[in-house]
Amino acid sequence: MSEVGTDDIGSWFSPEELAVIRRRMPILYVDAIPVRVDADGVITAVGTLLRTPREGGIQRALVSGRVMYHERIRDALARHLDKDLGPMALPRLPVSPVPFTVAEYFPTPGITAYHDPRQHAVSLAFIIPVEGDCQPQQDALDIDWFTPEQIIAPEILAEMVDGHSALIRTALAVTGRLL
Amino acid sequence: MSEVGTDDIGSWFSPEELAVIRRRMPILYVDAIPVRVDADGVITAVGTLLRTPREGGIQRALVSGRVMYHERIRDALARHLDKDLGPMALPRLPVSPVPFTVAEYFPTPGITAYHDPRQHAVSLAFIIPVEGDCQPQQDALDIDWFTPEQIIAPEILAEMVDGHSALIRTALAVTGRLL
Amino acid sequence: MSEVGTDDIGSWFSPEELAVIRRRMPILYVDAIPVRVDADGVITAVGTLLRTPREGGIQRALVSGRVMYHERIRDALARHLDKDLGPMALPRLPVSPVPFTVAEYFPTPGITAYHDPRQHAVSLAFIIPVEGDCQPQQDALDIDWFTPEQIIAPEILAEMVDGHSALIRTALAVTGRLL
Amino acid sequence: MSEVGTDDIGSWFSPEELAVIRRRMPILYVDAIPVRVDADGVITAVGTLLRTPREGGIQRALVSGRVMYHERIRDALARHLDKDLGPMALPRLPVSPVPFTVAEYFPTPGITAYHDPRQHAVSLAFIIPVEGDCQPQQDALDIDWFTPEQIIAPEILAEMVDGHSALIRTALAVTGRLL
Repeated sequence: MSEVGTDDIGSWFSPEELAVIRRRMPILYVDAIPVRVDADGVITAVGTLLRTPREGGIQRALVSGRVMYHERIRDALARHLDKDLGPMALPRLPVSPVPFTVAEYFPTPGITAYHDPRQHAVSLAFIIPVEGDCQPQQDALDIDWFTPEQIIAPEILAEMVDGHSALIRTALAVTGRLL
Repeated sequence: MSEVGTDDIGSWFSPEELAVIRRRMPILYVDAIPVRVDADGVITAVGTLLRTPREGGIQRALVSGRVMYHERIRDALARHLDKDLGPMALPRLPVSPVPFTVAEYFPTPGITAYHDPRQHAVSLAFIIPVEGDCQPQQDALDIDWFTPEQIIAPEILAEMVDGHSALIRTALAVTGRLL
Repeated sequence: MSEVGTDDIGSWFSPEELAVIRRRMPILYVDAIPVRVDADGVITAVGTLLRTPREGGIQRALVSGRVMYHERIRDALARHLDKDLGPMALPRLPVSPVPFTVAEYFPTPGITAYHDPRQHAVSLAFIIPVEGDCQPQQDALDIDWFTPEQIIAPEILAEMVDGHSALIRTALAVTGRLL
Repeated sequence: MSEVGTDDIGSWFSPEELAVIRRRMPILYVDAIPVRVDADGVITAVGTLLRTPREGGIQRALVSGRVMYHERIRDALARHLDKDLGPMALPRLPVSPVPFTVAEYFPTPGITAYHDPRQHAVSLAFIIPVEGDCQPQQDALDIDWFTPEQIIAPEILAEMVDGHSALIRTALAVTGRLL
């Protein structure tokens, strides 16, 4: 789950306040899996954000972030897709608010397939076809696209941040692309 | 459920053969609800095919038709959307093969909300955003678009062919547009 | 959405703290629609909690409540079902964490079909078959069961608290019981 | 996909007729994944039917079979569960007719993850908790239960008939049990 920037938090809570809340109630997130699809709707590629964390190495993530107060889920999705893929990505937002899976990130590992040491987050996850041009923003070095076959390679999944490899595999299973 | 033209049948079974089969096994269909969506993915309009049946009056229908031998569900969807909305409709085919509902049409009324006097048909139903220009084809007089509020008016739903009003209401419920 | 008792809040936040948080971030809820099903899995009845609010009259509600810190969604469901239907209700918890709909309750009416003057709540809604004996708990006078045909009567839906009539209609649509 | 017994076919079509139809139109099936769940609804075991095919070796399958003329999907599920697990299995039939996935079996390998040399079958797949006693019927030697961790072992998945390993992995992904 991606690091939330201070400006993102600051408009609502101080970092100290948010730190307290994060240890006392579940935080609502959205996760988006950016995909390229062919004319038949078949997923041809999955997009990942490439980052270099402070502790070194590289790390890949999906689009992910908090739902803000008085924000609809589809608006939170649109905002985070815009923030991470740039304004020309042309994402197709879902017609239904029902996620393909619900990822429950716990600070304690092993309760679910999802883990976030900072908080208890509950994320509604969506597969989002993007039709336009995606450009890395902010802290991302690049946006890499992998075919379904490539992305489930252990060495690629191993680069994903906590839980995002489980999200990708679930998305491929749900769409019939997990062979 | 729309009348299937002879040419559609003829390539596989004679009308007599199909008539026999239709009384002895369930026939697999796809139903598509064509919708217009705004940039946020919210449904703004639902499309219906306007027809004048031989027995007089007018009738509205969704896009509907059989799945052929060795045809993928998404290919059947693409074929029927093209056949009913024209080649410029630009439908967004679903990334997942899971329908939003399964409509079981029985020749006997009252078993489900769906009824088809000709056959036992099982239809996988999908909500399909269309982005391009839709033109009535073949036996349709026109394609009429209604807002979600307009289409659930009893006089419009009453014009729908058997079961298609239940499909529309289910689609609006699933997408959060049934208020 | 049901009133949350002080003891439910007190273990985590003071009422003042929660009041502040409720105006600044979305609160995660679960909604459960208790149903009776026949041997085929068809819904035969929907359960509602009958209450007499302080302002007079009667009010009906579904099972609803917050997800607590470090609590799985299925544990939150089990806790609220137990709290509202009693320990002998024998609810069948879902095998999947994916809700049948996501209800976004806004303090401002009209943004979605769901409204909660106290807060911005996002609720994952589940249809829960119950097999055992249900007894009203705490502030509920009774648990009333209605057939799908009865519960969509305007006078019954009018007694439901904000948004719960939309939840019931969506649940009946999704399960093929909205005729 | 399991071999369909002659008596199952004979009441509707002769084997010759069915053989012809199977090469000319898609056949509607249901697949059921029998599971044991704990009190929280978490899958603890997946059931498989152990068989010894004529060509030797062993083979595992899920519950699978055709939908008959004028039969509801839930009735087809009940019939095949009864036929394969025995009358005391106490399966919990789904409240919704929407499958967790749609498996498209083609006679040509490689079009989807599902392959059936005999026919083009389209199967609506459901995860079915069973609460009672399961006994092997007819051609099955035994019913073996595996934990989610055990069943995804390559040597177990390799024993599954065509496509059923993909169904199991999809079911585990959808229910959050694919780690």
